[in-house]
Amino acid sequence: MSSPIIITILTDFGIRDGYVAAMNGIILGINRNVTLVDISHEVPPRDVGHGAFVLGTTYQYFSPDAIHIAVVDPGVGTSRRALLVITPGGRFLAPDNGLLTYVMRAHFRPDTGDTSTGAGFMEPVETEVPRGCSAYELTEREYWRHPVSDTFHGRDIFAPVAAHLSLGLAPEKLGERIGEVSCLNIFPHARRGDILEGRILFVDRFGNLATNVRPSQVGANDLEVEIGGTRVRGLAVSFAEGEGLRVLVGSHGYLEIAEKNGSAALRLSASVGTQLTVRAAGARPAG
Amino acid sequence: MSSPIIITILTDFGIRDGYVAAMNGIILGINRNVTLVDISHEVPPRDVGHGAFVLGTTYQYFSPDAIHIAVVDPGVGTSRRALLVITPGGRFLAPDNGLLTYVMRAHFRPDTGDTSTGAGFMEPVETEVPRGCSAYELTEREYWRHPVSDTFHGRDIFAPVAAHLSLGLAPEKLGERIGEVSCLNIFPHARRGDILEGRILFVDRFGNLATNVRPSQVGANDLEVEIGGTRVRGLAVSFAEGEGLRVLVGSHGYLEIAEKNGSAALRLSASVGTQLTVRAAGARPAG
Amino acid sequence: MSSPIIITILTDFGIRDGYVAAMNGIILGINRNVTLVDISHEVPPRDVGHGAFVLGTTYQYFSPDAIHIAVVDPGVGTSRRALLVITPGGRFLAPDNGLLTYVMRAHFRPDTGDTSTGAGFMEPVETEVPRGCSAYELTEREYWRHPVSDTFHGRDIFAPVAAHLSLGLAPEKLGERIGEVSCLNIFPHARRGDILEGRILFVDRFGNLATNVRPSQVGANDLEVEIGGTRVRGLAVSFAEGEGLRVLVGSHGYLEIAEKNGSAALRLSASVGTQLTVRAAGARPAG
Repeated sequence: MSSPIIITILTDFGIRDGYVAAMNGIILGINRNVTLVDISHEVPPRDVGHGAFVLGTTYQYFSPDAIHIAVVDPGVGTSRRALLVITPGGRFLAPDNGLLTYVMRAHFRPDTGDTSTGAGFMEPVETEVPRGCSAYELTEREYWRHPVSDTFHGRDIFAPVAAHLSLGLAPEKLGERIGEVSCLNIFPHARRGDILEGRILFVDRFGNLATNVRPSQVGANDLEVEIGGTRVRGLAVSFAEGEGLRVLVGSHGYLEIAEKNGSAALRLSASVGTQLTVRAAGARPAG
Repeated sequence: MSSPIIITILTDFGIRDGYVAAMNGIILGINRNVTLVDISHEVPPRDVGHGAFVLGTTYQYFSPDAIHIAVVDPGVGTSRRALLVITPGGRFLAPDNGLLTYVMRAHFRPDTGDTSTGAGFMEPVETEVPRGCSAYELTEREYWRHPVSDTFHGRDIFAPVAAHLSLGLAPEKLGERIGEVSCLNIFPHARRGDILEGRILFVDRFGNLATNVRPSQVGANDLEVEIGGTRVRGLAVSFAEGEGLRVLVGSHGYLEIAEKNGSAALRLSASVGTQLTVRAAGARPAG
Repeated sequence: MSSPIIITILTDFGIRDGYVAAMNGIILGINRNVTLVDISHEVPPRDVGHGAFVLGTTYQYFSPDAIHIAVVDPGVGTSRRALLVITPGGRFLAPDNGLLTYVMRAHFRPDTGDTSTGAGFMEPVETEVPRGCSAYELTEREYWRHPVSDTFHGRDIFAPVAAHLSLGLAPEKLGERIGEVSCLNIFPHARRGDILEGRILFVDRFGNLATNVRPSQVGANDLEVEIGGTRVRGLAVSFAEGEGLRVLVGSHGYLEIAEKNGSAALRLSASVGTQLTVRAAGARPAG
């Protein structure tokens, strides 16, 4: 028996109601020899941005042949497409609503990806599939569970398709190749001199605030973040040193704002989309 | 090594406290070659009806040789019996308090199962074990963990018994066969002409309201549901189309009331047991 | 292929954010042939005492060669040490902050362990590693993931070290042996005649209150517990019999205070650290 393929599942289904278990059962019924891993099932209901961030900051810790199912799907049963996206870092099954934003972004070339689109923050934008990746619209009903519920494609489409993929089915069998998929607009909006205008991308369980600014974008340790009238200077190393608010490089690789023994989100009344500025006191990146 | 048997676990233990992990450890100590799957551990504390619904709408996605442990057990340590029930669709270990209601109901013949009993909604009723199924009272202490805690039969009785079953132990070794088990009264109460009086059976994480009415019972798409003075007409296809409240065929196979981007439970102040009527405008089922 | 080693994980990370999944991915990337079990990820944020109790009352249900990762780590990124502790009952990876209190306590000799230290309740105390156990400070960066995040040692240190251990790596390869580790002061404070002064150690999901008093310490069934001005007499057998508050021997092996169909924690406004007295009406233990 060959080494089992890993199938991960991310949803907003919670774990009270058995929806995730149904997906597990369907998968194991088609291929018993898989390793199932939960990414998260507590994505806030219908919060595609949260699910996209969690998936995009987690999948790289898994083998590139892993299959990742992501279902945060308020449009289930409408004409939104169901996707298979294959990247050098993993295979992804998800509705076409922005859930794969961070997965795709990792493969954009800088000259095509990192531009403003005119869309508002976190709004979906049709985006070209990056070079080295491929995308398919799932249309072949032969690999689905029937009857297909209009409200639970996780169980009836994504789970069985993942199981068939794990058995070695070629992606071309699942549907037509497509050239564009939806991505959320998560890019910084403007740079004014040495000031970068950013946003909060993600709030974790501890109330830590991940921004959409990477340390390399400001290029200096002597930075100053302003958010909601509050200024935080310098780059801290840990959650524990000193007191109060601090900016540090979070485990996701973004600048992150945290509060010692507390919640920066509560302290700053901040949430996803809250604006901030980052000033690199000791550096003026080419603007 | 043969393909591992699936053992699922459903409880109201939550996942803060290590109770489920203890069950996992006991099972793996007896049989390392099993596949463990969580059905739910966030059943609301002591809510047998919730647990029964989740189990009853999930087990069918697993192999018929799977073993399902269900522990929502406010009567643990009293004289309530501990059960093994074997059906063509799975093997079940649970206290005798109604947790297997939906599992058993799937095997009732229409002429015996679908009748009013005089019991109130969700009250337990002693019910004959359906033909094709068998039930045993767990009494053989040889297959339990000792000492047996009076407050945690999940760890000390159900988990080790499941592990022994997964190794091929004959059910007769576990206790005496019995003829009746407790089921909750979940049946509709009355049909008046073309109006069916139903109840809310289950509220999921999204606030969607599953009723105890199956689409086949009303036999028409042009239906009208009335609940708490609010009327909803027609059968919708998805959560996303249109606005506000809609009735659709939920993924569990029951008529379900949902609110677009919201909670029907909050909108309607509805919960398990809330009454509703369904009128099939275009059909008058033989009544 | 040999039987897979069990690796358990306990954290306060929650399951919304993908932190636990990242640890799973890292482990499976180093050793695909492990059995992963979640102990708990809903330890209240930064609550080392809760995590310690859950770990200490769960690990004994697993094989002694299991590897247990515990990460409730408010001091991550500071100078607090990262530990491997090996006991006859299991192998443990955790920050040196008291998470292994109950694990170690199981191996203390009565004459060294069960004494007052002058420290306040639940305060950390440097404690000699018990005979039969060994402890190592994790320092060998060769077995870590790089770059090491200053805020997520679960992913970058504990997970990869656990995976390497599961492959058979000798503990000496991971760092230097040490003689003392931090334990929380969980011992009863005083015994006055036949009265034992205890504390609440742990509050579970149901609001049941586990005390730090073992039944053997009072040695009588005819006991009386007083907590916050409320007295409860006698030892009950189950959660269900009678009405209201009762004292029973909890599944963790400690005296436990529970409320029928309710929460003793709410009823008594009690939480971890709340004081209580236990009087063994029928026995006067040598004091």
